[in-house]
Amino acid sequence: MSMIIERLTVIGVGLIGGSFARALREAGAVGTIVGVDTDRDNLNQALSLGVVDEITPDAARGVRDAQVVFVSVPVCSIPMVVREIAPFLPRGCIVSDGGSVKSAVVRECEALMPPGCTFVGGHPIAGTEHSGAAAAFAALFTGKRCILTPTPATDAGAYDTMARLWRSAGANVCSMEPGHHDRIFAEISHLPHVVAYALVHAVGTADVEGENVLSYSAGGFRDFTRIASSDPVMWRDITLMNRAALLTSIDGFSASLAELRRRIDRSDPAALAEFFTIAKQFRDGIL
Amino acid sequence: MSMIIERLTVIGVGLIGGSFARALREAGAVGTIVGVDTDRDNLNQALSLGVVDEITPDAARGVRDAQVVFVSVPVCSIPMVVREIAPFLPRGCIVSDGGSVKSAVVRECEALMPPGCTFVGGHPIAGTEHSGAAAAFAALFTGKRCILTPTPATDAGAYDTMARLWRSAGANVCSMEPGHHDRIFAEISHLPHVVAYALVHAVGTADVEGENVLSYSAGGFRDFTRIASSDPVMWRDITLMNRAALLTSIDGFSASLAELRRRIDRSDPAALAEFFTIAKQFRDGIL
Ligand SMILES: NC(=O)c1ccc[n+]([C@@H]2O[C@H](COP(=O)([O-])OP(=O)(O)OC[C@H]3O[C@@H](n4cnc5c(N)ncnc54)[C@H](OP(=O)(O)O)[C@@H]3O)[C@@H](O)[C@H]2O)c1
Ligand SMILES: NC(=O)c1ccc[n+]([C@@H]2O[C@H](COP(=O)([O-])OP(=O)(O)OC[C@H]3O[C@@H](n4cnc5c(N)ncnc54)[C@H](OP(=O)(O)O)[C@@H]3O)[C@@H](O)[C@H]2O)c1
Repeated sequence: MSMIIERLTVIGVGLIGGSFARALREAGAVGTIVGVDTDRDNLNQALSLGVVDEITPDAARGVRDAQVVFVSVPVCSIPMVVREIAPFLPRGCIVSDGGSVKSAVVRECEALMPPGCTFVGGHPIAGTEHSGAAAAFAALFTGKRCILTPTPATDAGAYDTMARLWRSAGANVCSMEPGHHDRIFAEISHLPHVVAYALVHAVGTADVEGENVLSYSAGGFRDFTRIASSDPVMWRDITLMNRAALLTSIDGFSASLAELRRRIDRSDPAALAEFFTIAKQFRDGIL
Repeated sequence: MSMIIERLTVIGVGLIGGSFARALREAGAVGTIVGVDTDRDNLNQALSLGVVDEITPDAARGVRDAQVVFVSVPVCSIPMVVREIAPFLPRGCIVSDGGSVKSAVVRECEALMPPGCTFVGGHPIAGTEHSGAAAAFAALFTGKRCILTPTPATDAGAYDTMARLWRSAGANVCSMEPGHHDRIFAEISHLPHVVAYALVHAVGTADVEGENVLSYSAGGFRDFTRIASSDPVMWRDITLMNRAALLTSIDGFSASLAELRRRIDRSDPAALAEFFTIAKQFRDGIL
C-alpha cells in the first residue's frame, strides 16, 4: 500500500494507539511516527519495541510538523490533551481520537480546534483487556469496524484521510452521528462492562457461610467475567463521559432482570422457558 | 485402571450423561453401559457413536441388573425419573445424578429409595453450552471438580463407589452439604446465567433509533454472553429448583449494580475507580 501521510503523532501509546501505529507501519501508510505518553516507562518501551520512531514526553513538541495527531488516552483526558496541543498544531493538521465515547469528546475537541485544523472523532471496535504499548499488535483492527463520527463541522478531506488510514490499518470504516454512537455503545459495550463489574463485585462479596465462593468458578464464570479485568481508569472515564446514555441502558437492563426475577419468584415454568428462549435466540443470532 | 462396576445405566444420554459414559469407558472402569433417553434420535445416536452399548426407551427395563444408575436429565425431571425406576431397582443398586441443583433433588430422591438402595447426589463442575450425546466427550471432567452431596442417610460404600467412578472419569471429588452447594452455585453459576440471559434480553430489545444494536457486538460481548446460549429447558429447571437461593443472589447482585449506578449518577470519579478496582481484583484473583 502507498503512503498516506508523512508524519503521525500518537499521544497515548497504549493498546489502541500502539496498535494503530503498528498497523499503519506494517501497511506502509505512514513515514515517521512520533510517540507521546505521560508514562515514561511505557513510552521508552514503545520506542524499544519499535512501535514508534521518536518519543517525547512533551505533547506540544510531539505535534510539531504532524499531519495527523491521534489521541488515544482515557476518554476524560482527550479534551485536556487537545486543549494542551491546540496552540502548537501546524496548519492543516488533523486531530483524531480512539476514545470509546464520542458525543462529549467531539463537542469539546471541535471547539478547541484552531483555524485550519479539523477534529475527526473515531472509535475502533476492537480491544483486549490488556493495556500499554507491550500489548499492542498490528492485527488488532483487522476485519474490525472503526466508527468515525463526523459532524457538520468536519472537513471532508480530513474525514477522508482518517478513513483511508483506518482502512489501511485493516478496519472497516463506517460513519455515525456521535450521540447515536454513544447510545448504541452504552447498550452493547458499556452496559455489559458495568454488569460484569457489578456481578464480580456481588459474587466476590457474597457471604455463603464464610466460604470463598469465587474458588468454585469454572470456565463459564471466567469467560463471562473476563471484561471485568479491564482497566478501571478507562472504565471510570467511559462511565463518566457516557453517563446519561449508560444510566438509560442500566435501567433497561434492570427492568429485564426484574421481569426475569418475577418469573422465578412466581415459579412459572412456561414464562421462564419463554424468557430464556428469547434471550438464546438473540444470542445465537450474533454468532 | 481396573473395573469398578460391571453394569452402569445412564438415564439421559446427553452432554453430561454421555461424557460420564465415555470417560468411564475410556478408563476401563465399567463393563456394560445401558442408555435410556426420551429423545429417540439422541438415544440412537448415543448407540451409533459408541457412547453406550445398549439402549432402551424404557427406564424400568434399563435399570435391570444395574449396579449404578446415573440420572442426567434436567433437574426437575430427576425426581420423576427416580420415582419411575424405584420399583425396578435391583437390591444394592446405587442411584446418582449430575443435576446442577442438589437440595430439593436429594431430599426427594432419598425419600424414594427402596430398602437396600442408596441415592448419592452429585454435580460435576464442567459443561459446555452444547447438549445431546453428540456433544459428549471423555475429557469433559478431566481436572474438574465433582461435588458429591451425601447426607446422614447416605451409605458409605455407595458414596465411595461414586467417588471412585468420578475419579476414574478424571474429576477431583469433594463433598458438601446439599444446601450449602445450592447457595454457592446460586452465586457462582446460576446468578451469572440469569444475568447473562437478562442482559441479552435487554440489549436485544433495546430501541436505539430503530437500529439492531446486536449487530455492533464485538468479542467482549460475545464472550460475555456465551452462557446465554445454554439450553433454556435446563435453565428453566435450575431456576425453578434453586429458587430461594437464587432470589437471594439476584438481590445481592441488584444491590451491587444499584451501588455502581449511584456512583455513575453522582459522576464520582474516585468512587467509580474504587468500585472497578475492587471488582478487577476479585476477577484477577481467579485467573
Ligand atoms: N482497550 C480497549 O479495549 C479500547 C477499545 C476501543 C477504544 N479504546 C479507547 O482507547 C483509548 C486508549 O485506551 P487503551 O486501552 O489504549 O489505554 P492504555 O493501553 O492504557 O494506553 C493509554 C496510554 O495513554 C497514557 N496517558 C494517559 N493520560 C495521558 C495524557 N494526558 N497524555 C499522554 N498520555 C497519557 C497512559 O499512561 P498512564 O498509564 O500513565 O495513564 C497510557 O500509557 C481510551 O480512550 C479508550 O476508551 C479502548
Ligand atoms: N450442561 C452443563 O453444562 C451441565 C453441567 C453440570 C450439570 N448439568 C446437569 O446435568 C443434567 C443433564 O444436562 P445435559 O447438559 O447433559 O442435558 P442434555 O445434553 O440436554 O441431555 C439430557 C438428555 O436427557 C433427556 N431426557 C429429558 N428428560 C428425560 C426423562 N424424563 N427420561 C429420560 N431422558 C430424559 C433429554 O431428552 P430431551 O431433549 O427429549 O428432553 C436429553 O437427551 C442436568 O440436570 C443439568 O442440570 C449440566
